Amino acid sequence: MHNPVTLTEIRAARDLLARITRTTPLTWSRPLTDQVGGEVWFKCENLQRAGSFKVRGAYVRIHNLPEHERARGVVAASAGNHAQGVALAATLHDVPSTVFMPEGAPLPKVAATESYGAQVCFAGTTVDDALIAARDYAERTGAAFIHPFDHPDVIAGQGTIALEILEQCPEVNTVLVGLGGGGLLAGVATVFSALRPETRVIGVQAGAATSWLPSLAAGEPVSIAGMATMADGIAVGRPGELPFEIVRECGVEVRTVSEEAISRALLLLLERNKLVVEPAGAVGVAAILESVERLKPPVVAVLSGGNVDPLLLLRLIRHGLSSAGRFLSLRLRVPDRPGALARLLLEIAAVDANVVDVEHGRMAPNLAIGEVEVALTVETRGPSHAATVLKRLREAEYRIESAQ
Amino acid sequence: MHNPVTLTEIRAARDLLARITRTTPLTWSRPLTDQVGGEVWFKCENLQRAGSFKVRGAYVRIHNLPEHERARGVVAASAGNHAQGVALAATLHDVPSTVFMPEGAPLPKVAATESYGAQVCFAGTTVDDALIAARDYAERTGAAFIHPFDHPDVIAGQGTIALEILEQCPEVNTVLVGLGGGGLLAGVATVFSALRPETRVIGVQAGAATSWLPSLAAGEPVSIAGMATMADGIAVGRPGELPFEIVRECGVEVRTVSEEAISRALLLLLERNKLVVEPAGAVGVAAILESVERLKPPVVAVLSGGNVDPLLLLRLIRHGLSSAGRFLSLRLRVPDRPGALARLLLEIAAVDANVVDVEHGRMAPNLAIGEVEVALTVETRGPSHAATVLKRLREAEYRIESAQ
Repeated sequence: MHNPVTLTEIRAARDLLARITRTTPLTWSRPLTDQVGGEVWFKCENLQRAGSFKVRGAYVRIHNLPEHERARGVVAASAGNHAQGVALAATLHDVPSTVFMPEGAPLPKVAATESYGAQVCFAGTTVDDALIAARDYAERTGAAFIHPFDHPDVIAGQGTIALEILEQCPEVNTVLVGLGGGGLLAGVATVFSALRPETRVIGVQAGAATSWLPSLAAGEPVSIAGMATMADGIAVGRPGELPFEIVRECGVEVRTVSEEAISRALLLLLERNKLVVEPAGAVGVAAILESVERLKPPVVAVLSGGNVDPLLLLRLIRHGLSSAGRFLSLRLRVPDRPGALARLLLEIAAVDANVVDVEHGRMAPNLAIGEVEVALTVETRGPSHAATVLKRLREAEYRIESAQ
Repeated sequence: MHNPVTLTEIRAARDLLARITRTTPLTWSRPLTDQVGGEVWFKCENLQRAGSFKVRGAYVRIHNLPEHERARGVVAASAGNHAQGVALAATLHDVPSTVFMPEGAPLPKVAATESYGAQVCFAGTTVDDALIAARDYAERTGAAFIHPFDHPDVIAGQGTIALEILEQCPEVNTVLVGLGGGGLLAGVATVFSALRPETRVIGVQAGAATSWLPSLAAGEPVSIAGMATMADGIAVGRPGELPFEIVRECGVEVRTVSEEAISRALLLLLERNKLVVEPAGAVGVAAILESVERLKPPVVAVLSGGNVDPLLLLRLIRHGLSSAGRFLSLRLRVPDRPGALARLLLEIAAVDANVVDVEHGRMAPNLAIGEVEVALTVETRGPSHAATVLKRLREAEYRIESAQ
C-alpha cells in the first residue's frame, strides 16, 4: 500500500492551522528525566483549543470539504474529544454541526460541545449506537460525516503535532503517542518516517482495551469487545483501516500499559507538572513509568487531551493517592470503651501520619460485644511511611482486619 | 522614599535567571475574554520550576550573597512555595539549605522540599514559630536567612515576571497579581511604573485575610490576626516593610475577593485551562470573575503557583462542583417500602441528572416509623438544571428536607 497521507499534505495542514490552533508548549519532566537518564518532555496538547489535539484533524477535514457539502453542515458521533473538536472546527468555518452522543454521556462534555456551537442529539447507550444515528442523519440530511480517525485529512491534521515536536526538540529520539483508532499515531509516524526515521515512534494502548496488538498479529484490523479501561478516549474496538495500513507500513511499535500506571501518570502530571490530563492522554507517560528497557532520550510523550470529567478527576486523585501509597485505608477493631479511639489516633500521630477520615461503627459482621470497628483513611509520605504506620499499630497489638 | 529596587536590577536578575527559570507560557482564556469583552491571558507561573514564582527571588537573593556567607548555607521558614523555591535555588548554587516548617505541614510539601535538596526541620505549630526557629538557627550557625519577600534582591527576582509579560503581551492594560507579603506585587509594580505606567496593576488579597487594606489606610504596615482563607499562600498577617513602601509609591490598587470566587476560579482553571493552580495563585482570576467594572483589556492575571495538596484539590473540586451548581446535595424522606428508592431515582433520571452518591438511613432525628431518610448527591449541568431537578421532585410530592 502507498501511504495516501504525504508530508506535503501535513505541511499544508500546518500552514492552514497556523492561525487556528495553538503551538502547544513542550514542558520538561524532572522525575522522568531522572528515571530515563536523559531529557523527557511532554507535548501539552491538553492545552490545545477545545482541550485536545482533535480540533487539528477536524479543522483540516472540514476545510477541505467542497463548498456545497459544507453548506449542508457536518455531523459526528462521539462522547468525547472528537465531539468538541468537530464543534469548534465547524463553528470556526461558520458551518452548522450536529453531534450524536450516547445517553448518559458525561454532562460537562455535553455542555462543552454545545458551548462550541454544536447541536447535541442523544441516541442509544453506546458510541456505536450514536455512530449509527449519525450516519443515518448524514444520509437523510446530506450533512458530511466527520470520521474521528479514518480519513486522510484527519490524519494530516493530527500529524501537524509531529512537525511542532520536531521544531521544539529537533534531536528527539523517542516519541510516545496514545493509540485508539490510530489517526494521531498514523500522522505522527508519517512525519517521522519522512523527516527523522531514526526516531522511534511508539503507540501506546491501555492493556485492558487493546485492539491493535491482535490486529497487528492478524495482519488486518480485528474487532475486540470488553474495554474496561479508565482511558475511555482510546478505548476503540477496532483500528481504523487507513491508520492501520500507515502504522504497519511505518513499522511503528505498539505496547500496552496497566491501569495502575495510568493512575500514577495522571497523579505525576497533576502534582509535579500542574497539568490536568485525561487518562487517554497520559498513556505515553504511563509507558515511560512502566518501561523495562531504557528509552533513548530525548523522549517526548504526547499529552493528547485534558478533557476529564471533574468527577472522574476526584476518583483519580483518590485512586492515585492510594496507589502511590499516600492513602492508607485501614479497618481494625478496638474495644468499645471511652478513650479507645483517642488512643488509636495517638499511635498514628506518633509516627507523623495525618488521619483524613474516620468511620466508627458497631454494625460490622462477627463483631464481638464490647468491640467496635474503625475504618481509617490515613495520609502518609509514601509506601515506607505506610509500612511504619502498620508496624506501629501491630506493635501496639491492634488487630488490623484489612489495610490497603 | 526612594524605591531601592530599580529596573536595572530587575533586568540584571532576568539575565541571571535566563538559564535557570522557565519563561512560563501566557495562555488565553475564552470564557473570561467573553466576559471582559477583550483578551484575557494567564501568566502560568504554576508551570515554573518548583511549582511557583518563588524560585526567581530566592535564586537572585542566594546568588548575590557574598561567597563567605553562602558557604555557611541558607535557612528559611515556610510551609509552602518559599520552602521549595529556596531549596531548589540553594541546590542550584550547591549551597546547603535548611527549611523550618511548623509541625503538621502538608506532607507533599515536606516531601517536595526535601526532594529539592533541603533539610527540613519542624518547629512549633505555626509559620511564626518556624520563623523564630529559623532566625535562631541563622544566629547560631551563621547561615543566611532568606526572607520570603522583604528584601530588594527577592523583589528584583519576582519582578522578572513583569518583563516576561511585557514581551509576551506588550499592549497589556491590566495586570492582576496575588498579594501576600508583597514581594511579587512590588517587583511587578516597579517594572510597570518604569516601562508602561499606563498599565493598571492590581494587587489581590483574599477578603478573609487582608492585611493590606488596613495597612494602606493606616499609612504603614499593620498586623492582622485570624486568616481563615483557603488561599494559605497569601495569608500573610503583615505586609513587608519594603514591598509596602514600593506598592504605595507606585500607587498600586489593592482589592479583595471572596472564597467563593476563589473556588470558582480554581474550577475554571482546572476544567477549561487544564491547569492545576493553588488557591493563592487563583485570586487574580477570582478578581476578574468578581469585577463589577470593566477591566481594560488586554488583561493578564498571574497564576503565581500550583503547589496544591492533592487532598485540598479533592475538596476544591468537590466544593467547586457544588458552587458552580453542578453538585446538588439533597436530603429527603421516602416511605420505607420496596421500590420507594427506585421510584425516587427514576424521577431524577427523567430530568437527565446523574446520581453520584446515595445514602439511605433510618437514624435521622424525628423520622416517623415507616419513613427513611435519603441523602443524594446529584450531578447537574448547572443551577438551572438543578432547579429543574428540585421542581420535578416537588411536583412528585417528595418532602425535601434540605437542598444545597
